[in-house]
Amino acid sequence: MASVQKSNPGNYFEDFHVGMEIIHATPQTLTEGDIALYRAMTGNRFAQYSSSEFAKAAGFPGLCIDPVHAFHVVFGKSVPDISLNAVANLGYADGRFFLPVMPGDTLSTVSEVIGVKENSNGKTGVVWVRTTGFNQRGETVMSFVRWVMVNKYEMDNPAPEPVVPDLPEAVPAAELVGYPDMKAWDMALAGGPYTFDDYAIGEKINHVDGMTVEEAEHQIATRLYQNTAKVHFDAHGQKDSRFGKRLIYGGVVISIARSLAFNGLANAGQMLAINAGTHASPLFAGDTIYAWSEVLDKAELSDTCGALRLRLVAVKDQDPGAFAYKDDAGKYAAGVLLDFDYWAAIPKR
Amino acid sequence: MASVQKSNPGNYFEDFHVGMEIIHATPQTLTEGDIALYRAMTGNRFAQYSSSEFAKAAGFPGLCIDPVHAFHVVFGKSVPDISLNAVANLGYADGRFFLPVMPGDTLSTVSEVIGVKENSNGKTGVVWVRTTGFNQRGETVMSFVRWVMVNKYEMDNPAPEPVVPDLPEAVPAAELVGYPDMKAWDMALAGGPYTFDDYAIGEKINHVDGMTVEEAEHQIATRLYQNTAKVHFDAHGQKDSRFGKRLIYGGVVISIARSLAFNGLANAGQMLAINAGTHASPLFAGDTIYAWSEVLDKAELSDTCGALRLRLVAVKDQDPGAFAYKDDAGKYAAGVLLDFDYWAAIPKR
Amino acid sequence: MASVQKSNPGNYFEDFHVGMEIIHATPQTLTEGDIALYRAMTGNRFAQYSSSEFAKAAGFPGLCIDPVHAFHVVFGKSVPDISLNAVANLGYADGRFFLPVMPGDTLSTVSEVIGVKENSNGKTGVVWVRTTGFNQRGETVMSFVRWVMVNKYEMDNPAPEPVVPDLPEAVPAAELVGYPDMKAWDMALAGGPYTFDDYAIGEKINHVDGMTVEEAEHQIATRLYQNTAKVHFDAHGQKDSRFGKRLIYGGVVISIARSLAFNGLANAGQMLAINAGTHASPLFAGDTIYAWSEVLDKAELSDTCGALRLRLVAVKDQDPGAFAYKDDAGKYAAGVLLDFDYWAAIPKR
Repeated sequence: MASVQKSNPGNYFEDFHVGMEIIHATPQTLTEGDIALYRAMTGNRFAQYSSSEFAKAAGFPGLCIDPVHAFHVVFGKSVPDISLNAVANLGYADGRFFLPVMPGDTLSTVSEVIGVKENSNGKTGVVWVRTTGFNQRGETVMSFVRWVMVNKYEMDNPAPEPVVPDLPEAVPAAELVGYPDMKAWDMALAGGPYTFDDYAIGEKINHVDGMTVEEAEHQIATRLYQNTAKVHFDAHGQKDSRFGKRLIYGGVVISIARSLAFNGLANAGQMLAINAGTHASPLFAGDTIYAWSEVLDKAELSDTCGALRLRLVAVKDQDPGAFAYKDDAGKYAAGVLLDFDYWAAIPKR
Repeated sequence: MASVQKSNPGNYFEDFHVGMEIIHATPQTLTEGDIALYRAMTGNRFAQYSSSEFAKAAGFPGLCIDPVHAFHVVFGKSVPDISLNAVANLGYADGRFFLPVMPGDTLSTVSEVIGVKENSNGKTGVVWVRTTGFNQRGETVMSFVRWVMVNKYEMDNPAPEPVVPDLPEAVPAAELVGYPDMKAWDMALAGGPYTFDDYAIGEKINHVDGMTVEEAEHQIATRLYQNTAKVHFDAHGQKDSRFGKRLIYGGVVISIARSLAFNGLANAGQMLAINAGTHASPLFAGDTIYAWSEVLDKAELSDTCGALRLRLVAVKDQDPGAFAYKDDAGKYAAGVLLDFDYWAAIPKR
Repeated sequence: MASVQKSNPGNYFEDFHVGMEIIHATPQTLTEGDIALYRAMTGNRFAQYSSSEFAKAAGFPGLCIDPVHAFHVVFGKSVPDISLNAVANLGYADGRFFLPVMPGDTLSTVSEVIGVKENSNGKTGVVWVRTTGFNQRGETVMSFVRWVMVNKYEMDNPAPEPVVPDLPEAVPAAELVGYPDMKAWDMALAGGPYTFDDYAIGEKINHVDGMTVEEAEHQIATRLYQNTAKVHFDAHGQKDSRFGKRLIYGGVVISIARSLAFNGLANAGQMLAINAGTHASPLFAGDTIYAWSEVLDKAELSDTCGALRLRLVAVKDQDPGAFAYKDDAGKYAAGVLLDFDYWAAIPKR
């Protein structure tokens, strides 16, 4: 018998209009179980996300969900509506973390379309959305902009009036919130002796360690966030794709690179804002991630706490001490996976 | 020195007698940790098992263990006593879910032998058991029948009087329990617009997405349920077996197929009963699972809630939109993994 | 710009001095999430670590963290300071478990150097440390000695005065603590009929089952314990190492071998002390672990509870019923992975 198509076809470029609000499905309650799994999948060791005692002593309400973990969850919700027919994730900007996410909190996600621009080929267009994560009290937990290249449904459909949002190059330091009073910060327990004062603008930090990612690992992590993009899970379907195999969710790279950054940035574990982010090249199972960071800026937040603006660069299968980044033409060097610009809280001396 | 054999030899066909009750070992407490892991292993996104807020709004006592998850746990307990020497799991029937399983609940399992029938080859026999799961208050949480082909210990042992239980073709809709009042069901958050009224008997639903299963994944999931059947874990021992490699636990296929069914059946996430189930062919690591469903029947349960009787068919490495099932001779088509007939609750319009 | 080296270089042989105390970083809160994951990664089924109801009935305060799991966490903390530059983990001794670790407890680790001895080659030395795990109330949860061979930083540096600690061959049975009153022990639920009285000194137990370990599995487990030793994670970096691939953390072998020992030692699930332990050969992904045990000694602890001193031997890719151990020259036989001598509590009849 003939049947109505009941599976989700996703949205095409023509479906997006500036001002459109999309309520994303499957709100998700995050628990101590998610914290344990996030640690096991990423190697997260930052003390405020490892020990409830440390967290409380450092002024947090208890053991929180790492903001990067919460980001993946909020992002994951938006995938079926925003990027099911995406050709590419082009970037992130203006990401702000407002409130801690505690075990037991439920996150839900809403996106607003803030820009559309058809590409000159007439086959695809760029869509900008501001995605916001709420907790069960309706409080805004985080907010970020991302933009994706999406297929058009029909090449002949007319192009919309282009709207390109004006995005800040970085979140202003004066607008950072949610950092604790760090006067009781225990550096021996946190695992590193370096404070705000020890980092210099322009300094590069080699995070040394490497982590190889297996198919099982990225699939488990990506399902933990309820990100369902089929390119990450369907080996059979990917055989005829451009790469011939599963692609690893970019969030897996962000989280592992952040965990590797413990080795050199142990006191800077709390992400306060995402200024920009680009997935420069794909990661596949069997590849090994390494990372290095550059201090882009510094800002005093309080008497006890400062912020480092950091560029986190993930590379694959190469010494991160080579600090590979871009070539003279501004193109990413071979093996660069991720270029991620963020603010992190760090104690002052 | 000579030693008593202290490992569990399992039961052989001769050990089973109709009326025999078996108390299975290792009761298991299920927690928020199990929920997070189940999600991460299967991709479960049904809103009532994802968000405690959604669950409470929908009339559940909170975030429950997905009944399919609880089924695997209750089933897993029975493996060392029922199917350690099994040649094949032949089927399920008359499975009923009576009570929600909440985080903190402890499940224990008891089986009663309800049928035995020796095969004509004199080497094996079929054993039917009714397996019941209890919570820590002694309340019956679920109950199901399964039958397995088990090796005889000694071919010369006499055949028992055959007893073949009379099993219902399906659980009668009038006997379904445990569904909530669905008047406050939020379809935007649940992730699909289709209600009881939108599905027609005979309708087939293509769930589109695929999920590839790795060795690590099925092993982790199967251990989560404390199912210890060695065919799933022992690559060295399996080298000389019929397939030469590890077999994936059939419950892994059920759970992943159910998670894939979200795409088309997002509001039908609560399993109320298992009518029948057959593992048509084995799944191995590296294979990709796809799924499609057919609406076999419909039943009104209350003013707000209906039930769909669904056939969930899992196939491997092929387009589920081809709806592969059985050939003209009634044999399962190539690549069919699972034929699973169940009732699910779904809101009415 | 030139930058200060901010990543942890680890300690070299010259950095260790007898009497030196090292506070290790990243205290870790263990939750129900960790319990679920530990079960899923190892196959742990011992009833007191599976069911909160069983645990309470057996005199525990509730569902505790398996002491072996807690051991890996306490051990993991010490890795960045003790064994980052280690050539080999040589052994364990005098391990004692004093207090249960409950979900919500936070473990932190301190080590004291109790011995140093330079090797005659002048390139390496052996360091003995006593590592102690504390809970958030500052109570000592466990304590053990381990010794490692560590690289010297500079071959020409003078050798220290050798100090070799006097270690007991086994923890005296009279000093074992933390076992419950086992009079209400339910053997049907625990999964085995054999009590203290059924085991004879010298008896060998074949645990029969095998478990194959995948790269994803040992990496996930090792991150769960926050053990960061790079040999376990960095496939790219390991290409030029002695084995050319990732080594599996020895604790993974201990935990899986213990889980396999359920089959024959179901009532002896509580580890009370570690007498000695040697990782006889490395395990790699794809290998299958089997295990056998030998009863080395027995001791009465109370009217209801006894202790078995057990040698747990893990072997790979071979029948554990061959009881492979050492050759006539005292060298470990081919395929022996682990030689682990411990005390376990077990009910008396």
